Order: sequence, then C-alpha cells, then structure tokens
Amino acid sequence: MRATGIIVEYNPLHNGHLYHLQEARKQTKADIIIAIMSGSFVQRGEPAIISKELRTKWALEAGCDLVFELPVRFAVQQADIFASAAVQLLKDLKTDALFFGSENGDAAQFRTTAKLASSSLFEETLRQTLTEKKLSYGEAYTETLASFTNELDVTKPNNILGLHYALANEKQKANLELYSLKRTNDYHSTDANSNDFASATALRKLLLENSLPAIKKKVPDFVYASLENYQAPLLSFSSTYPYLRYRLLSDRNESLTAINSVTEGIENRLRRAALEETAENFLRATVTKRYSAARIRRTAMQILLQFQKTDQPENYLRLLGMTKQGQAYLSTIKKELSLPLVSTPSKVSQELIQYDIQASRFYHLLEGNSAQLNAEFSARPLLYF
Amino acid sequence: MRATGIIVEYNPLHNGHLYHLQEARKQTKADIIIAIMSGSFVQRGEPAIISKELRTKWALEAGCDLVFELPVRFAVQQADIFASAAVQLLKDLKTDALFFGSENGDAAQFRTTAKLASSSLFEETLRQTLTEKKLSYGEAYTETLASFTNELDVTKPNNILGLHYALANEKQKANLELYSLKRTNDYHSTDANSNDFASATALRKLLLENSLPAIKKKVPDFVYASLENYQAPLLSFSSTYPYLRYRLLSDRNESLTAINSVTEGIENRLRRAALEETAENFLRATVTKRYSAARIRRTAMQILLQFQKTDQPENYLRLLGMTKQGQAYLSTIKKELSLPLVSTPSKVSQELIQYDIQASRFYHLLEGNSAQLNAEFSARPLLYF
Repeated sequence: MRATGIIVEYNPLHNGHLYHLQEARKQTKADIIIAIMSGSFVQRGEPAIISKELRTKWALEAGCDLVFELPVRFAVQQADIFASAAVQLLKDLKTDALFFGSENGDAAQFRTTAKLASSSLFEETLRQTLTEKKLSYGEAYTETLASFTNELDVTKPNNILGLHYALANEKQKANLELYSLKRTNDYHSTDANSNDFASATALRKLLLENSLPAIKKKVPDFVYASLENYQAPLLSFSSTYPYLRYRLLSDRNESLTAINSVTEGIENRLRRAALEETAENFLRATVTKRYSAARIRRTAMQILLQFQKTDQPENYLRLLGMTKQGQAYLSTIKKELSLPLVSTPSKVSQELIQYDIQASRFYHLLEGNSAQLNAEFSARPLLYF
Repeated sequence: MRATGIIVEYNPLHNGHLYHLQEARKQTKADIIIAIMSGSFVQRGEPAIISKELRTKWALEAGCDLVFELPVRFAVQQADIFASAAVQLLKDLKTDALFFGSENGDAAQFRTTAKLASSSLFEETLRQTLTEKKLSYGEAYTETLASFTNELDVTKPNNILGLHYALANEKQKANLELYSLKRTNDYHSTDANSNDFASATALRKLLLENSLPAIKKKVPDFVYASLENYQAPLLSFSSTYPYLRYRLLSDRNESLTAINSVTEGIENRLRRAALEETAENFLRATVTKRYSAARIRRTAMQILLQFQKTDQPENYLRLLGMTKQGQAYLSTIKKELSLPLVSTPSKVSQELIQYDIQASRFYHLLEGNSAQLNAEFSARPLLYF
C-alpha cells in the first residue's frame, strides 16, 4: 500500500485543509493518508482552540486513515524542530510521500534549496548571522538563505516550514517523495470562489468572537455540525495567561532559565510584561523584531509546560485514530517500527509520555473539565470504521 | 528602654489580640512593643485574608511600636521553624521579654518543659517515635513529650507554639523573659462578656461569607472601619487553588519533590486530590491523621511559592511599620544588629528577599491587583507618628 504523509494542526479543520487532503490522495496516488497532528498545544504557542479528540475525528472524517500526535515537546517548537520530529514519525511509518502546502508550490525548489541549506557552509553562515545581528532565528535564516539562493521566498511561513520538511527529509534520509500544493493567497479576497476559503487564524478569531455562523461556508459540514454541538470552552493564548503570569511573577530565575527556549535574558522581558493584565498587552509588550509573537507564545507555553533544557525528549508514535484501512496498513509495518507505538498512554513508560500527559491535564484544566483531567492515561485511539 | 516582643498574624486583628497587646505592655512593663508578624501568607498555609499593609496599620493603631515581617520562608512552616525564626528576630532586636498567648498561661511550665524537650534524650525519642509510628510531627511531638512530662498539654495549638518559643529561647540563648497570657476558651460561649471575643478562624469565616456586621463587636472600631472600606478581595486557601491545581497537574515529579516539605511521597496524594474541583474537596481528600489540614495547606503554599529543599534561606528584619518611639528604640540598637535590616526591599540583595518578593507578587495576583504587583520592591515602612 502506498502511504502519503501530511503534517497538520486542523485548528480548526477548514475547506482549505480538506482540499489539501483530497489533492494529497489524488496527486500522490495514495492508498493511505497518514496525518501527523499537533495535540493539545500547537506550533504557534497556544492551546488548540478545540480538543485533539474532536480534531482527530475531523481528520478521519475528512479522509485521513491514520492520525498520530506529534508529541507536545516537538509540536510547540520552532519550525526546524517541529518539522524534523514530524518527518521522523513519517519515516518510521514507512511513508512514501509527503504532501505539504506552501506559498511556493513547487516541490523541486524545496529539494534543491534543502540541499543548499544542509551544507556545512550554510550552517556556518547562519550561526555567524545569528551571532552578529539582532535577528530572530527565522529572520536570520531568511537572510542567510537569501545570500545563497533566491529560489524560495522563506519569508512566507509555509515555505519555511516546507523547507524544514525537505531539510529533515535530506538529513534523516527519510526518502519521502516531496509534493507541494500551492496555497491560495486569496483568503481575504471577496470574490465568490475564494469565499469558500479562510485561514485558520481568521476562523479562530471568528469562533472566539462567538461568530460561528460566519464560518459556515468556510468549513466542511461535519466540522460545522460538531462546532454547533461543542460544549467545552474554546481555548486561546489568553486562557493560559493567568497561569503564565503566576509563573513569571513567582518563579525563581533558575527555574525560568532552565526552560528550553528561555535564552538571551528573555525571562526579564517576559517578567516585566507579566505586569500587564491582559494577554494581548503582554504580547504587545514583548514582541519585537527579534522575538516574533509565535516565538514569545512558544516560550510562554514551554514555561507553562516546563520543557527542561536538560532533558532529551524521545519521539514516539501516539496513535489518536484510524480507519479500517489505516489499521490494516499499520499491521503490515508494526513489526518494523523503531519508535514506540503508543495506543494507550497508561501502558507505556511514564517517562516517555510525561509531557503529553501534563499537556493534556493542563488543557482540561483550562477547559474547566475536571472529569477529563486524567482521561489521557486510559485514552484509546478513535476507531472510524 | 524596655522592649517586649509579641509574635502575631492579626488575620484579622480582634479584641482578643488587643487585650493580649495591652496586657503585654502592662504585665511586662514594656516601653516598646515589638511585633513579629507573618506577611502575605500565614502559618496555617494560606494567604492572609487581608493585606499585610493594612494588618501593619492595625498593629500600630493597636499599640505596637515596631512591626517586623517574619519572612515567608519561615512563616509558612511548622511550629518549630516558625517559632525559631521569630525568636531569632526578637533576640537580634535586643528584646527583653516575650509575651505570648497560650491555653496553659503559666510561663514557668513552658520554661521547664522546654528544658526537658531540648535534651538530647528527648530528641532521640522523638526521632524514634516519628520513624516507628504513622504520626504527624505534631502528634509525635505530643506523644513523646507526654512520656517525659504532663505539665503542659501540647495537644493545644497555642501551647505547642509557646513551647517552641521557649525552646528557641533556650537553644538560641536569647534570654527572653517569658510571659504567657491564658487564652480564654469561651470563644463559642454566648454570655455577654465573652461575646466580645471570637477566634480569628471564626472571624475569617464570617468575613468570607460577607457577614461583616456580625463581627462588629469582636474587633476594635478602627479594624471594623477599615474593613468597611477595604476594596481588595478577601483571600483564602481557595483563592490559590486554581494555581495549586495547575502545579500539581503539570509539574514534574522532580520539581515537586524538590520542595521543602514534599516528603514521604505526599506529592502523589496531592496530585490525586488535585482532580477535585474545589479547595474544600481537595482538603477533604488529603487530610489524614498523619497529615493535618495545616500541614497540607502549608505544603501547598510551599509548592506555590517554590520553597526549595536545597536553599538555605537567611532570616532578616523587614521593617513594616513603626511609631515615633519605635523609631527611637530602633536607632539605639541599629548598630548592634547582626541580621540585615530591610526598610525598602529594592535596596538590598535580591537573593535575600526573593521569596518575599514572589510572595507579595503572588498575593497581589490573587487579589487581581496588577498595579501593585511590584509594589513590594519600593515599599517603605509605615510611619505611625
């Protein structure tokens, strides 16, 4: 069976995602679609607006055959770490192809740029740029890359992510055939056709404003129906802010600087900004040219979830859901997996899964859902047969 | 000038406290009354119901001349640590006498019992009792003491505290003359006379139930007037519970077991109980014969304020307020102080004061008072001239 991987967050799943998924199956001639999905917390550094359980159901309803969770320790990270861990999972799952959206849309350009960017000369130049200039990692990357090639515009968020997929593919010798779907840039256009598409950011904004009907045309019917019935509160960066403030106002310096991306004295900037009463003002007070909003939010989540610099998290295959075909595919490759396959967290090493257990508990705490606090332990994959 | 020390929390200050203060001045023939007071968090393991600033004002209005804060690292601790740190401050302040309330009321019995209980034979027996029986520290202490002497009933909370004052006095050679005022046990009596007295616990309960008028007769007029005008929310253990849950649900084991009184696997009991939605049920699920409610709450506060086992906190003299006479007394002894005198926290080593700064920030966060989050840095002693 031919398997194609996609790397998603479905936060929430919208028509653009559905199109991407259908094209993935068509263009790559896939028998099986494997989705690697962020869980309770997403790459932009905030809780997913909707629980991972419902997003898994969406993924399966939309046509994915297997849904695996990208462990939170890798999901709430900058593009290179995020991409590398996702590609590692796909490689272990014997995936044949990777189909990703990008502003560029030409997979060949990602391959050639990745070859360039994985050279030691590039890495050295990047290190130098980071040291010499007050730039964020993303900006330094863009600038360095521009001095090598102009083929790929890596100021675009999906291009940079795609490049890191291609780079990881190269470095890990994952042998994934790369396919890219050009993302439409017409999200905000008003003509009738593009009206069916909106970015996940725009949709989250509408959802948080309680404007559910406004997104009706932008999401598949099954998504809309489940959103109409969704009982839990919708979460955002703001939901976490009281806890973030508590940490920033009362944690000791040693405790903050022990956290993964707390570097360069950013803790002082964050601490000062924690005097602000709202998450919005906190971000306004912290975001600079050097520190993007995503970087700040990710650092905040890493503080809240206590990602320690000293630990070396292992990647693993947390199965969230599958179709009959997905199950059949999995059984053919099960014996060859080198990463731990986790169906029910309580049955594996607690060391391995601890960050995801904590993340799940924190997510339910934010929802105010006490009954589900320990649900992740005994969770079973969703069977969509 | 003759100085008498009292060790207080004034949470809130009531008629019993006022009587104790007046008797202290009278019985010990004091020129100066020095109060050592818990700050934002109190010994029973919860935030003070009222800010330390207002409680300082009350102390001065009630007749204290100098008010020093017992640093939080010593205040939110079991009786022996609490008492020892308070006595250390009084010793350094050249206090002549210590006047404390107790159920027993006979200072001589505290002195003789302290002599017994500071023997190495006693300490050995206590250690053995703790090891062999599933008892709380307090219970083991009581049992051990009972095998030595019956003079003092140390099942009574104020007797045990008094005994630890006497013990600290002995061990530190503080040379404080001990005086004890017998506490009336008629708190719940209904006759007219005892009606003027109620325990701080009873008063907090009424205040938290918004029954301010019900306490009018139990507190001095100046306390009542300021409570009528108090704008900030009244805090309790419940106020801290969302943050406690977050910590217990998402902190790593290593992080919890690094905390001061997290021993004997109590973290597992606390973690499980954090599934409970209310602070009340959390306590119900954790309190046992071995772990008193005060012990559980203290452990909880130590987790929230991150008291590390590894650090060795230093005691210091944080001056919260003074009268003219208090100031005059302080200037006569200033040069002989061996502990740091702190009038404005920003002007001293941040290492020294960090726990109190964090405690103050957390207190204001619980109040929802963003404007005051950093107020403790630049705070000045209250002058009551």
